Amino acid sequence: MRIVVLAGGIGGARFLRGLKSAVPDADITVIGNTGDDIHLFGLKVCPDLDTVMYTLGGGINEDQGWGRTDESFTVKEELAAYGVGPTWFGLGDRDFATHIVRTQMLGAGYPLSAVTEALCDRWQPGVRLLPMSDDRVETHVAITEAGTGERRVIHFQEYWVRLRASVDAEAVVPVGAEQAKPAPGVLEAIAAADVIVFPPSNPVVSVGTILAVPGIREAIAAAGAPVVGLSPIVGGAPVRGMADKVLAAVGVESTAAAVALHYGTDLLDGWLVDTSDAAAVAEVEAAGITCRAVPLMMTDLEATAEMARAALELAEASQ
Amino acid sequence: MRIVVLAGGIGGARFLRGLKSAVPDADITVIGNTGDDIHLFGLKVCPDLDTVMYTLGGGINEDQGWGRTDESFTVKEELAAYGVGPTWFGLGDRDFATHIVRTQMLGAGYPLSAVTEALCDRWQPGVRLLPMSDDRVETHVAITEAGTGERRVIHFQEYWVRLRASVDAEAVVPVGAEQAKPAPGVLEAIAAADVIVFPPSNPVVSVGTILAVPGIREAIAAAGAPVVGLSPIVGGAPVRGMADKVLAAVGVESTAAAVALHYGTDLLDGWLVDTSDAAAVAEVEAAGITCRAVPLMMTDLEATAEMARAALELAEASQ
Repeated sequence: MRIVVLAGGIGGARFLRGLKSAVPDADITVIGNTGDDIHLFGLKVCPDLDTVMYTLGGGINEDQGWGRTDESFTVKEELAAYGVGPTWFGLGDRDFATHIVRTQMLGAGYPLSAVTEALCDRWQPGVRLLPMSDDRVETHVAITEAGTGERRVIHFQEYWVRLRASVDAEAVVPVGAEQAKPAPGVLEAIAAADVIVFPPSNPVVSVGTILAVPGIREAIAAAGAPVVGLSPIVGGAPVRGMADKVLAAVGVESTAAAVALHYGTDLLDGWLVDTSDAAAVAEVEAAGITCRAVPLMMTDLEATAEMARAALELAEASQ
Repeated sequence: MRIVVLAGGIGGARFLRGLKSAVPDADITVIGNTGDDIHLFGLKVCPDLDTVMYTLGGGINEDQGWGRTDESFTVKEELAAYGVGPTWFGLGDRDFATHIVRTQMLGAGYPLSAVTEALCDRWQPGVRLLPMSDDRVETHVAITEAGTGERRVIHFQEYWVRLRASVDAEAVVPVGAEQAKPAPGVLEAIAAADVIVFPPSNPVVSVGTILAVPGIREAIAAAGAPVVGLSPIVGGAPVRGMADKVLAAVGVESTAAAVALHYGTDLLDGWLVDTSDAAAVAEVEAAGITCRAVPLMMTDLEATAEMARAALELAEASQ
């Protein structure tokens, strides 16, 4: 079975671990969000790709969900001693090595997709991990500064990590997406898929950014395979992160049903909501999307594998 | 008193510490060798500049004479886990931060001289540290491979660090030197100097490389200030390192007198040899260079300061 998953960071990575456990023999291609990539200290950092790679490769810091386990922060301390920032982004020494290798390869002319493949040679994530695009796309967020009232457009990471989404996101713009091309293999994987899955990743800044690369949304809409998604909103709030802030920026309510309708019937064939959101099933089905309520909390590997099995069963039923 | 010192790595840095101790109020400009600079992992590494900066700024690993004290090697281990080399160059985590800052600034368009000044803002070496040039110069060494008999031209660092000069250096070429320009301030410092000193650095790959930048040798020869040097050869062998190997490549014997004559009377006004080489004094003086025999082992700070005082007295006497 060929499965294509559009993944952001922590939520997507943990779902993928459950999916691999549920169908260990499946041929899984992950299309990773690169809109939260950022250049720090002259190095190219790809947080979502690395979170998927480290999580599936056994190198992730399980407690925080991102970054490396058994990490130290000597380089970061030294950079701060030089007065070089930003200090709000927590790059550890082990993680730095990944960014150094990536930046060196990019500088030598390799596209990000080839670099990602090379990094995965070490991590053996058990999936084919593709960046959504080899072209540079960076999500920016328009905010009004709390103190000054000044309107600013900042990098998504500054909004997410430094400000912790503490102010409203007035607009979310994937800068460069319009000119970006899908990375080699992306459209082919979508066309050849037996199932396409939107895991419980952020619908705006993760899955939404991937869909903003011209050709990807169209390929998914045109694919013969069923497309099923899992709601990242449970009981009217994001399970993790601050998805409600960026959903508001695109005028979408933070409810399981609203996110399904935001993706829309041109993309989604099936949608899973949490059992606590069972009341949303009728609304989603009324829009023409097959919907089921199942437990959607990724509390452990088995619970997550069960979610993956439910998604695949729903795909089968949505054919 | 304005003193200009042409410095390589360990020998030059330790001499400078003695010089600062001997004349704490002197205005010292160091023209640093950048011919042993190397790009590693996409980062610009300047071993000699850093050795001077760390030594005078209190960050040096005293035992090995290069690199940072209290160092760890997490990044290097991770790079090795990615299969990315070279593994023979020992970059520690603290040291990596220096190279990351430097590379980021160079990438942003700052010349190496401005970057070096910015790094020194942190280290406060108490001297003005100038790279010999903002242009890229890399010393390469021609060798014949021990096993295969193959002739190869390799980076100086590979010859020095990986091979530990275990094969003959057949030629030493400062690639790029002919097209290089002295960094801003270099010629001005030489012209304004009261004394110019060649510390006991390597006469070929350290001081020799600096002199290979068009304009620098000529400026020193034309300077009004006396030029004095300290022999890095004591008792027919280098005090440190493998200077004999690269002296042989340029056809110079490893003796205190031969090195003085190699610099020549167009540059040198005075030359210090070690007391064990007192027999060389007559030969050097016969060539027209004032020469004295004094203890030249930098065993501790006071012994080194005494060497510096002897060099300044010799300069006075050579006027």
